[in-house]
Amino acid sequence: MNAPDPHAKLASTEKFADLLARTREPFPASRKAYLPGHLHADLRVPVRDIALTNGELVSVYDTSGPYTDPKAVIDVRQGLASVRGGWITGRGDVEHYEGRAPVALDDGQKSEDATRLAQLRAEAAALQRKPLRAKSGANHTGNVTQMHYARKGIITPEMEYVAIRENGKREWMEQYMADAGREQRLMGNPMGASIPRIITPEFVRDEVARGRAIIPANINHPEVEPMAIGRNFLVKINANIGNSAVTSSIEEEVEKLVWAIRWGADNVMDLSTGKNIHTTRDWIVRNSPVPIGTVPIYQALEKVGGVAEDLTWEIFRDTLIEQAEQGVDYFTIHAGVRLAYIHLTAQRRTGIVSRGGSIMAKWCMAHHRESFLYEHFEDICDIMKAYDVSFSLGDGLRPGCASDANDEAQFAELHTLGELTQVAWKHDVQTMIEGPGHVPMHMIQANMTEQLKTCHEAPFYTLGPLTIDIAPGYDHIASAIGAAMIGWMGTAMLCYVTPKEHLGLPDRDDVKQGIIAYKIAAHAADVAKGHPGARSRDDALSQARFDFRWQDQFNLGLDPDTAKEYHDETLPKDASKVAHFCSMCGPKFCSMKITQEVRDFAKQKGVAEAEALAAGMETKAEEFQRGGGSLYVPIKPV
Amino acid sequence: MNAPDPHAKLASTEKFADLLARTREPFPASRKAYLPGHLHADLRVPVRDIALTNGELVSVYDTSGPYTDPKAVIDVRQGLASVRGGWITGRGDVEHYEGRAPVALDDGQKSEDATRLAQLRAEAAALQRKPLRAKSGANHTGNVTQMHYARKGIITPEMEYVAIRENGKREWMEQYMADAGREQRLMGNPMGASIPRIITPEFVRDEVARGRAIIPANINHPEVEPMAIGRNFLVKINANIGNSAVTSSIEEEVEKLVWAIRWGADNVMDLSTGKNIHTTRDWIVRNSPVPIGTVPIYQALEKVGGVAEDLTWEIFRDTLIEQAEQGVDYFTIHAGVRLAYIHLTAQRRTGIVSRGGSIMAKWCMAHHRESFLYEHFEDICDIMKAYDVSFSLGDGLRPGCASDANDEAQFAELHTLGELTQVAWKHDVQTMIEGPGHVPMHMIQANMTEQLKTCHEAPFYTLGPLTIDIAPGYDHIASAIGAAMIGWMGTAMLCYVTPKEHLGLPDRDDVKQGIIAYKIAAHAADVAKGHPGARSRDDALSQARFDFRWQDQFNLGLDPDTAKEYHDETLPKDASKVAHFCSMCGPKFCSMKITQEVRDFAKQKGVAEAEALAAGMETKAEEFQRGGGSLYVPIKPV
Repeated sequence: MNAPDPHAKLASTEKFADLLARTREPFPASRKAYLPGHLHADLRVPVRDIALTNGELVSVYDTSGPYTDPKAVIDVRQGLASVRGGWITGRGDVEHYEGRAPVALDDGQKSEDATRLAQLRAEAAALQRKPLRAKSGANHTGNVTQMHYARKGIITPEMEYVAIRENGKREWMEQYMADAGREQRLMGNPMGASIPRIITPEFVRDEVARGRAIIPANINHPEVEPMAIGRNFLVKINANIGNSAVTSSIEEEVEKLVWAIRWGADNVMDLSTGKNIHTTRDWIVRNSPVPIGTVPIYQALEKVGGVAEDLTWEIFRDTLIEQAEQGVDYFTIHAGVRLAYIHLTAQRRTGIVSRGGSIMAKWCMAHHRESFLYEHFEDICDIMKAYDVSFSLGDGLRPGCASDANDEAQFAELHTLGELTQVAWKHDVQTMIEGPGHVPMHMIQANMTEQLKTCHEAPFYTLGPLTIDIAPGYDHIASAIGAAMIGWMGTAMLCYVTPKEHLGLPDRDDVKQGIIAYKIAAHAADVAKGHPGARSRDDALSQARFDFRWQDQFNLGLDPDTAKEYHDETLPKDASKVAHFCSMCGPKFCSMKITQEVRDFAKQKGVAEAEALAAGMETKAEEFQRGGGSLYVPIKPV
Repeated sequence: MNAPDPHAKLASTEKFADLLARTREPFPASRKAYLPGHLHADLRVPVRDIALTNGELVSVYDTSGPYTDPKAVIDVRQGLASVRGGWITGRGDVEHYEGRAPVALDDGQKSEDATRLAQLRAEAAALQRKPLRAKSGANHTGNVTQMHYARKGIITPEMEYVAIRENGKREWMEQYMADAGREQRLMGNPMGASIPRIITPEFVRDEVARGRAIIPANINHPEVEPMAIGRNFLVKINANIGNSAVTSSIEEEVEKLVWAIRWGADNVMDLSTGKNIHTTRDWIVRNSPVPIGTVPIYQALEKVGGVAEDLTWEIFRDTLIEQAEQGVDYFTIHAGVRLAYIHLTAQRRTGIVSRGGSIMAKWCMAHHRESFLYEHFEDICDIMKAYDVSFSLGDGLRPGCASDANDEAQFAELHTLGELTQVAWKHDVQTMIEGPGHVPMHMIQANMTEQLKTCHEAPFYTLGPLTIDIAPGYDHIASAIGAAMIGWMGTAMLCYVTPKEHLGLPDRDDVKQGIIAYKIAAHAADVAKGHPGARSRDDALSQARFDFRWQDQFNLGLDPDTAKEYHDETLPKDASKVAHFCSMCGPKFCSMKITQEVRDFAKQKGVAEAEALAAGMETKAEEFQRGGGSLYVPIKPV
């Protein structure tokens, strides 16, 4: 059945339009607010304000974009409103141009029949934009990267946006900071990070200039709400999505994205393969407020019918330009898989497990040649800087199991990535480094130390790592352990793992499970590092818990829906939302209730008496000691 | 409706008998095997052998007891067959006695009506046993603890059993050990633990003698399959269960236990409250192959109608004897909540969150007196040693949120627990120490260090710890991170946390989710510590993954059912179980397939050529260096 049933399509569009409408609903008790800029007045930096039942407000970082703003009118066939358009053109260093002519092959060698493809593209007609690129001089490529501006001393609107976003609302952070001032033990251990109490635009500029942070923001992705990835910022997470086996509608593909950012994905990688990938990418990028990453070699391989040996630099280069024009914000490039390293993987238990890595290894072996990605790395830099696409230097030789962790192949590639980082920085191209993978806990620190040293503090972006290999079906948990640890140690972004890892393609719920597990890991890392303000949400939630403000406890959590649902399974009545006990212990056993009584009792008796009591005990202890001279005399009075 | 409907009861019995039968099914491709003893010929130490499709066998630690042995005939109304009965009486130091006369109050002040209670007890008539206790001399209490024997130099059958169980089958471990010999990086970092390559019975004895490990094994629980808790053994996990609100049948209560040990609970705590708790406990202990722990203060509180102030030493003592006679293997005793420490919690964000801790705090304040648990600690020791009940010294002042972590109250109590450990050891009573709770990652190490120092390496038994407070609904994940880390650092047993923590009572699936998360944490800790043999299962699974032996991958995992179900959602056909690709990438993109091709290619070309290629690259690199003298000359040949 080549010709799709138009009724089926309509049904699917309606179904997913409905779903998307539900996915857009604001979080409970939450209101989207926007913070203005100081250097750049037109900034509208989003935060989510949660109103508590006791009148307090808690403000949290918000990745969900305009989708959770009821006032935002969104039509996925028109794309999101521009955030950065004026800033980009206002700099005067870009130009519109015709762009590369789209061809049928962009949607894969075995794309839909021509009619169907034309239909799909027509649906996305309004999403087609004339691309921008850097203006070039007579004998140099133009450079419009955030790093380029930073190194010139310029604070871009993107940089100020990031600074404001990282700080969030001061009023709540002050409470934490005061708290931390009292209690040294709560300050965190930054493990070598240098996180200022307040992130200034100047700080963002300096971090981007020295390559320690990136702001993935292609000039052809003006819809993006800028965010930073760097060890001195909040730890970020990435979620992967892919096209559906049978592409049904724009609504379906966009809903996946909206679902992922709703739960907290800071970045999304589009790992689509097979049919209609160019067209799907238009749908996603035009509707995404978060940076979109891709692995261009996947599409290049589609163009050569899946035969790795048939890949050429020309096809790859063409694919980079195609995707850069669409607005992809970062490219995974496996340029560290060098011919000389391939034999190092021969004795591994699971060989090469990165798709991009194995494609390049196969190419190198087939041609007895050095990788064209490595050889053309500076050509790639020239493309990246003309659009401000960031590098995500792929770890094609990452370990695929615990017993391959930290081996010679892995670290040989990492050293090359460090070398390539310097080349990219020579071109002012923003760069982050991908990391493993599968690493037992005791070997995690070595990964971070080696990366920081070898790659000169370029942001590390790891997949987990998974700490064990015996948990298929639960690898989001096995990897959240490693992710939290390496996040604490300095990793800037954590690529999520879903429960379906190693088993199948994640469905909607798997995506959510993976994201929540990684929000936990990232937040645990922020708290441990002592990121200013990170702990305020924990404190507010703990206070709500102690005060039996159930709704506040749900609403401050990462997933209010699930928390409420779990609570209601045992105590479904609304009355219990204000009850001073819960289902675990009931009214009689409630330890928090008893604590409150103890506190009231202590207050009533007075602190003086409490201290006297305590002193009395000390006297008693002294008596014991006098009585026996030994620590182990019977404690019980005879 | 006081009189239960007998038809409803019958239906419930049948329903749960059916469920129990399903819960008893052996794991796929698994066969229960038993290892014999050397010093004690009658040992039958259980392991689970998993048959792989390539003919290999993998053997794993097995907590499931006789329930997964199809040959075992089990009647929950008769209880399990005795494992240790002969060993206990064979030592000649115990005597049967009439025991404490059961009273209606044992099942709670507000127990069922007398008829119903009599009926429930009648159902368990065959489970009533005449208790054993240590024979006493003229002026001393007898002592039958494993620690007592160990300190006399005796290797009990329990100790040899534990040694064999910890080692498992040598043939698989040898592979790992050979592997580790080759690869120093895989050896693990024991963080101060001293784990021998082979656990000998002598080693177990020495660890028990010096208090660094315990073997919870009440002489009135002969059904238990002995296991060890100590930092130089495999990390263990504990699951909590409780009675149902409406007690329906023995089958229902026993099925909960069987479900928990099926998924890997090494110990189970019965935290039942309310009605019928004495009777329910008989059902559980008599049918449990794993040690059972309780918090006796919960039952004592039921006996005084829930009024903490009305507790007395006499009621508590009576409860300890009642439960010791039933065969409970360890008691949580909150003897470290001293009067002098209570005011230290007044400024906490969440006060006292331990139920036992808050009960004792309330008692102390009400009476202006030191805790009767602390004052009668040596009397408690006298009871413990007469039955070999182990202490689990409760952390009644553990933090209830991140901002209360590692505070003065918590560490004051810990110091007292260290002092009490020495008192318990003076009586040769086995002792472990409970720990938090809520601790951010950067504060975990301090907990372990302080506990090891203060409590002289008595086993640490922590609840998580939860690393953040904003994950209600996902606290099994937030805490598995902390649990894995503290397990690596030296914690001997991890008390699980379910997704319902802080929200409600866990159902059957929540219990499983909590257990699997904690098996992951415990195993990650074992791997990181370098526990000999721990990694062999990971290696076997990774090899199966690389070889596309799907069934083996499922069967070697912690939860074969879920792994298979997830796989089948995308590729349901049986044919795909042997397919050399999977649903994530399809046949074209499969990186593992490509790796195999690369490997074949390398083999075909010969190692010599591969090395020549590598050497060639080195030459090329030298050329680059000669050409430029700088690391950052353009990499691309001009």
